[in-house]
Amino acid sequence: MAAAAPPPPPSDVPEPRMAPPETTPIGHPVFTRIRLATPLDVPFIHKLIHQMAVFEKLTHLFSATESSLSSTLFLSPPFQSFTIFLLELSSSPIPPLLSPSPSFTPVEKTFYFDLALNDPEKDAFSVHYGSDQVVIAGFVLFFPNYSTFLGKPGFYVEDLFVRECYRGKGFGRMLLSAVAKQAVKMGYGRVEWVVLDWNVNAIKFYEQMGAQILPEWRICRLTGDSLQAYQNANV
Amino acid sequence: MAAAAPPPPPSDVPEPRMAPPETTPIGHPVFTRIRLATPLDVPFIHKLIHQMAVFEKLTHLFSATESSLSSTLFLSPPFQSFTIFLLELSSSPIPPLLSPSPSFTPVEKTFYFDLALNDPEKDAFSVHYGSDQVVIAGFVLFFPNYSTFLGKPGFYVEDLFVRECYRGKGFGRMLLSAVAKQAVKMGYGRVEWVVLDWNVNAIKFYEQMGAQILPEWRICRLTGDSLQAYQNANV
Repeated sequence: MAAAAPPPPPSDVPEPRMAPPETTPIGHPVFTRIRLATPLDVPFIHKLIHQMAVFEKLTHLFSATESSLSSTLFLSPPFQSFTIFLLELSSSPIPPLLSPSPSFTPVEKTFYFDLALNDPEKDAFSVHYGSDQVVIAGFVLFFPNYSTFLGKPGFYVEDLFVRECYRGKGFGRMLLSAVAKQAVKMGYGRVEWVVLDWNVNAIKFYEQMGAQILPEWRICRLTGDSLQAYQNANV
Repeated sequence: MAAAAPPPPPSDVPEPRMAPPETTPIGHPVFTRIRLATPLDVPFIHKLIHQMAVFEKLTHLFSATESSLSSTLFLSPPFQSFTIFLLELSSSPIPPLLSPSPSFTPVEKTFYFDLALNDPEKDAFSVHYGSDQVVIAGFVLFFPNYSTFLGKPGFYVEDLFVRECYRGKGFGRMLLSAVAKQAVKMGYGRVEWVVLDWNVNAIKFYEQMGAQILPEWRICRLTGDSLQAYQNANV
């Protein structure tokens, strides 16, 4: 899939209320953490990608397996090549990582919602840290790209996905912001991704995040038999 | 610049005639070679990118320097990150590389043209191999991207550029084909790039090369102050 899945558009779901520092937070707390994915997360990543294909009605294009993901991801240090942030959620504080990456300090944030979040697939997306259990709610996959005009790298966001029961709550924004913040930290010049032209809610959301939509560029793709034809090409 | 410069479209310039094996080639021979760029090529690369910015009337967006290119390119082995192929030309056979890369065997091809090619900027783009002199005629910059649906990498072509006096002769096709062939060799699933929607000649050319143009996707770009705003974001 060549595209960031549409993030949760502004919806009629109430926006999360951040607890003001001086007042007592009201509602159901949701503790969240963005951390780097590891090879152990491949089963979750595979399921998330499949859900994204279902959401986009593109399962006929889905051929990734846990094995193909394992053999192509995590081959380089974080941020140097394909990199995945996972969003973890819990109703209680999330314990620190036992083996934190020196490349990235996890982003933590606590939300308070009027209603408790109900996750019908909680078991399938649970990670256990000792006796603590958190759920994987979404992911973002990105990798460096390069602007020759700027003479510097950027990040391209291939996929941004939040599971259905967690949409419309600011988690997509949190994941994309984490990528943007990392780009700034590394002195990179751009963050880019793509969106479907009819997805006006997603476009509005991205524009609110500060992105420009480039109207004139079209993606060209060489794949399948048309690509294989170059195997023996006398270029 | 986020885009492959339009390649030489089919034009009224005569197509190069490849010498059939059994007949004597007629015309002016042009020996060509595609090789990996090295840090020593940065001055050429910088000039080529600047020419591309001029061609696209986008010099106001051009801020790359030799220094910014040197500090961001050639940090990883070929094909693992940002990779540049250069196209060299000579009217006599091109001597072998003294230090060929184990990652890539240069592509060599001889063309015969009715008219000798006249290069008004020959001196600025000359490389000397001992007493032999070749000129840099163009380049392609590409890097790995990733398809989560395929569960495998591909290549994204950021720039494809052939200097003006060498356009319409099949050199753009040669550079792009070399990237496609390398993708197949590495078992990659796709080669992608972008084109301006009004550039019908380029679109026709790319379609002839087997590419699909994806009509619905739009590029989103977060850059400049809008990106910097995420530096201290409480994501």
